[in-house]
Amino acid sequence: MKAGRLYQYNQPLKIEEVADPVITHPNDVIVKIGGAGVCHTDLHLIQGMWHHILGTELPHIIGHENAGWVHQVGSGVTNFKVGDPVIVHPVMSCGYCLSCRRGEDMHCEDLKFPGLSVDGGYAQYLKTSDRALIPLPEGVRPEEVAPYADAGITAYRAVRKAAPLARPGTKALMIGMGGLGHIGIQVMRELGNADIITLDIDKGRLDMSLDLGAAHAVVANDQAISQVKSLTNEKGADIIIDFVGTDRTHADSMQMLRKGGHYFVVGYGGTVNVPSINIINNEFNIIGSLVGNYSDLYELMQLNARGKVKLHTSKYSLDEANDVLRKLEEGKINGRAVLVP
Amino acid sequence: MKAGRLYQYNQPLKIEEVADPVITHPNDVIVKIGGAGVCHTDLHLIQGMWHHILGTELPHIIGHENAGWVHQVGSGVTNFKVGDPVIVHPVMSCGYCLSCRRGEDMHCEDLKFPGLSVDGGYAQYLKTSDRALIPLPEGVRPEEVAPYADAGITAYRAVRKAAPLARPGTKALMIGMGGLGHIGIQVMRELGNADIITLDIDKGRLDMSLDLGAAHAVVANDQAISQVKSLTNEKGADIIIDFVGTDRTHADSMQMLRKGGHYFVVGYGGTVNVPSINIINNEFNIIGSLVGNYSDLYELMQLNARGKVKLHTSKYSLDEANDVLRKLEEGKINGRAVLVP
Amino acid sequence: MKAGRLYQYNQPLKIEEVADPVITHPNDVIVKIGGAGVCHTDLHLIQGMWHHILGTELPHIIGHENAGWVHQVGSGVTNFKVGDPVIVHPVMSCGYCLSCRRGEDMHCEDLKFPGLSVDGGYAQYLKTSDRALIPLPEGVRPEEVAPYADAGITAYRAVRKAAPLARPGTKALMIGMGGLGHIGIQVMRELGNADIITLDIDKGRLDMSLDLGAAHAVVANDQAISQVKSLTNEKGADIIIDFVGTDRTHADSMQMLRKGGHYFVVGYGGTVNVPSINIINNEFNIIGSLVGNYSDLYELMQLNARGKVKLHTSKYSLDEANDVLRKLEEGKINGRAVLVP
Amino acid sequence: MKAGRLYQYNQPLKIEEVADPVITHPNDVIVKIGGAGVCHTDLHLIQGMWHHILGTELPHIIGHENAGWVHQVGSGVTNFKVGDPVIVHPVMSCGYCLSCRRGEDMHCEDLKFPGLSVDGGYAQYLKTSDRALIPLPEGVRPEEVAPYADAGITAYRAVRKAAPLARPGTKALMIGMGGLGHIGIQVMRELGNADIITLDIDKGRLDMSLDLGAAHAVVANDQAISQVKSLTNEKGADIIIDFVGTDRTHADSMQMLRKGGHYFVVGYGGTVNVPSINIINNEFNIIGSLVGNYSDLYELMQLNARGKVKLHTSKYSLDEANDVLRKLEEGKINGRAVLVP
Repeated sequence: MKAGRLYQYNQPLKIEEVADPVITHPNDVIVKIGGAGVCHTDLHLIQGMWHHILGTELPHIIGHENAGWVHQVGSGVTNFKVGDPVIVHPVMSCGYCLSCRRGEDMHCEDLKFPGLSVDGGYAQYLKTSDRALIPLPEGVRPEEVAPYADAGITAYRAVRKAAPLARPGTKALMIGMGGLGHIGIQVMRELGNADIITLDIDKGRLDMSLDLGAAHAVVANDQAISQVKSLTNEKGADIIIDFVGTDRTHADSMQMLRKGGHYFVVGYGGTVNVPSINIINNEFNIIGSLVGNYSDLYELMQLNARGKVKLHTSKYSLDEANDVLRKLEEGKINGRAVLVP
Repeated sequence: MKAGRLYQYNQPLKIEEVADPVITHPNDVIVKIGGAGVCHTDLHLIQGMWHHILGTELPHIIGHENAGWVHQVGSGVTNFKVGDPVIVHPVMSCGYCLSCRRGEDMHCEDLKFPGLSVDGGYAQYLKTSDRALIPLPEGVRPEEVAPYADAGITAYRAVRKAAPLARPGTKALMIGMGGLGHIGIQVMRELGNADIITLDIDKGRLDMSLDLGAAHAVVANDQAISQVKSLTNEKGADIIIDFVGTDRTHADSMQMLRKGGHYFVVGYGGTVNVPSINIINNEFNIIGSLVGNYSDLYELMQLNARGKVKLHTSKYSLDEANDVLRKLEEGKINGRAVLVP
Repeated sequence: MKAGRLYQYNQPLKIEEVADPVITHPNDVIVKIGGAGVCHTDLHLIQGMWHHILGTELPHIIGHENAGWVHQVGSGVTNFKVGDPVIVHPVMSCGYCLSCRRGEDMHCEDLKFPGLSVDGGYAQYLKTSDRALIPLPEGVRPEEVAPYADAGITAYRAVRKAAPLARPGTKALMIGMGGLGHIGIQVMRELGNADIITLDIDKGRLDMSLDLGAAHAVVANDQAISQVKSLTNEKGADIIIDFVGTDRTHADSMQMLRKGGHYFVVGYGGTVNVPSINIINNEFNIIGSLVGNYSDLYELMQLNARGKVKLHTSKYSLDEANDVLRKLEEGKINGRAVLVP
Repeated sequence: MKAGRLYQYNQPLKIEEVADPVITHPNDVIVKIGGAGVCHTDLHLIQGMWHHILGTELPHIIGHENAGWVHQVGSGVTNFKVGDPVIVHPVMSCGYCLSCRRGEDMHCEDLKFPGLSVDGGYAQYLKTSDRALIPLPEGVRPEEVAPYADAGITAYRAVRKAAPLARPGTKALMIGMGGLGHIGIQVMRELGNADIITLDIDKGRLDMSLDLGAAHAVVANDQAISQVKSLTNEKGADIIIDFVGTDRTHADSMQMLRKGGHYFVVGYGGTVNVPSINIINNEFNIIGSLVGNYSDLYELMQLNARGKVKLHTSKYSLDEANDVLRKLEEGKINGRAVLVP
């Protein structure tokens, strides 16, 4: 099959012919990719930022945001048959450990993460397990929903954690209205009841955020902190969800967070640096949030089916993968790019 | 009256005669101090660490951990009468703002904090409000329980937040077995169900912690991280409660925390510094915890009344305040020192 | 002043001149009534259903759903001044007991309930306390919002309890689209994410419910149970909120509730009767819900201010009180009737 | 193998030779029974009380509280091998439905319940699935822990739900100190912080409850309600856990429950009957509780391993099953009886 493989950090992917994935376990499933979303984590993988954490061997097929059709099933698979359209929860989990039992399959003790730790979806076919699949309703095209598989549930999980705090009368600041953010704001509008303030460097994205439910949109410049303060009665936001995660957004967030507030870290790349006297005096909560679990994906697909959340996508061929990654790095992708092999 | 006042940062308190506090509001109460606990925050106040946050004018009477007897009451006070023995919740709160209504009186929008923002309890008399008082059961001496008023509820609040996470089968690491820590471990033993590991530089305190409920005690040296890892199946602790709060404990805690774990920051003075990739990949939760609210104090006094939590105290005269503060700084106070005027 | 007083159970109110209320406590406030909502509980009071619980002496001025303007304040009132437009939280609470401290002022240990246990708002003036008041934003007329003071927060509280369970993919059945129900469905639409099914005997109210956010509306007849079953994949509703509370709605709800489901009892008058084998085998949760607390009223007024919830009201003079009560009993009031003195 | 089968409701079991269970699915496991607990639900099954719910065909091997050794494994079983000592979670669950994903495997949409819906453990061998097994630590004999598999986790689940409400200063009433109750009180002592009051008809069991953590023990006679009232400052218990479930305990509990209180129904057989005006005015919560999930069993076994909870058991041969059931019905079993085949 054709696939995009990383041979060396900070080098373009090689788009080339590779061997098809093969079923090796009774619960394995081969999915024919309908669409694979292009994510900032793909950039971070190419930069080698995950190397010391995952130790993944190169060459490696990236791509962890996948949807398509069931192509082949292992002998133990009973819930799916060849041809079924599916969205692929990004991790292969065991189903037996305590984390899986309690629903947090991303913390599975025997985790495989296609696109990060094993071969992923910048390809024509992907190997995953039957536990990872959710059937698509009739009429839904895999390439239209693929970004829910990672961007979607990452945003969903952070907002779902924040939502119980987003009581009427609270203020929620959402930083970054790109691939995750444009989903996140819709989920916040649906799950929470805070007044939403958005922050981005791009005017077009801020305008979009106003359409999607923001009460106020703030341009990320030198006045941003004081504007957010002013929009929150000089108290700061009860909730901040940071989809960007640079040194700058981490530091500024500590200035814009209300006493007792919660700062959800979703984007990454910078360093959170804060004196502990500020953490205790303000009773700050700094909450890391990873990709969502299977139940998060189920719930998000329910919101999608009812038209409560909509994706902004643009489609590209697999051959264009390196171009698309460059555009993403330059901030030139609106919503989410999807590779269609 | 006699009181200990701070005239200049990083200088000893002046123990001197000052004017008695005067009732100015119908709900004010003057408490005759029976005991005032000596806290690391007193050291931090003397060091000027709180100056940019509170802006308290000097000279200032410190002391925020008080118990005694009702000495005088304002015209609107109906629940207390002169002579009643009481423990004093450390803040004067309005009772009307949303924070007060929802029980988080430490976040009152019209807060006064005797000993931090207004005159405190290193003195013979203290002015507070009727909302701050809890009556003591018969036979309980104020100087025996004063440390519950701040050290107690600060430890209680952090542990109370952590307890729902401390399910059977989890590991909780508690750093620092001093004034707060020796209460915190008892509260964790009562409220939680984790295996408790303690960490301290002092062997005597670690032994005490084993008596108070720890399953394992680890000396804070270069092997500490690997020992904690080994005691947690190389996974790290589900819960860390840090009663110390130096650069070292903040950094080490990030090495000893399990994926999905919660790090409660109670002690302060250092800086929390962590790359956001670690926060998100491990789904770390960094939770600041301040002094407890009135309901926390009520609950802690219930545990005390049933003998479930016990204080280790040593008594000193008010004249000895500067000596006691020096000993505290040098790590020579076990449990909690209490000044009896 | 003019007031409507109950002299004898099951007899009409006497609309008559009575003495004005008088301030007796520093925190008392006299409110000039702008509007007083007419509630099913008023009918139940007249029927004597509350007599054995409250033992209120007759004659008694009913009316517990009030808004108006501050008319006179006690010496200790600092947050309000004469002329301020306010909505009146229905209970007078002490602010000192644990229930008040923890935010559940309706469970105050020293509670007075104007309109139930002391004189209420079917009158020109009402005595309450400063703790009960919320200022109205400019331009909001008291008679337009009075129903939030009881119907509103009773519906809000039940839905607020249910909302965390109303995850995407769940089904919520709401029974009774009258005074409480027409608010409840809007709050459920805003706070929750369930598919909403409504049930009522009246076709007009069901149509209104579809406008207000219901996905399906079911006429309360002999096919209702099977229709609700069919709309819930034969599993029953995850959540039922019963604003009616007759023997019939109680019994039917037990047929329409899903395994693990929650049945919120808000309306009352009937008897809940269910074999415990059904309660345990289905893990049913039967949750009583009373009037909301102050924080509930605050939050609801925030939703109102943002246009997220709207009241359907019809206005009548105080002289018409008995007529309005009769219409309410006959099911002829849509939304909520408000008496304007 | 030898087994005890029910041929006709309200008739003794027939202890007879039957065919051994056979593996039919790759994840099936045959367990050689080391001990099978004898439960009130076995009595209810024999009485036919579950017939209209389960429709189980007769003859049927009862026994749902099992532990033993792995005897044979299906081709897909990788976590267990022949000879492993195990405790058996009582249900066979699919692992794929939302209930399983969220940890509530007892609500699995494809549930099999050995001993209730398929053949159980009053036998030499039992068929279950690998998802149901928890390995026993070295030195733990299956017949010593079998009662945790059902009585244990049923008590654990109810108390685990109640524990967050059992804050210091609250009162918890536990009704029935038999098989479930004697475990429940220990779990409440460990997980909660309420003052515990126990209620039973048997003086010996009440004495045992005082040893196991009760602060007060009340004999279930005509003075019981007033005694409980007196022990709770005439307010009633914040929490009631009813392990008995007769008409009498249901009715009395409504008299002994505090405003805002929670009544956990665990035992069954009677009918809960309460006017809805009492439910709403008192904000009662009536919470059904079923057998615990896998994670509950894991946690309980952790408490057991640390010596925090201990079982009182008496052993009998499988041939004595009918005698033991009779004794249980007559209230003559203390703690839990276990059949050893």
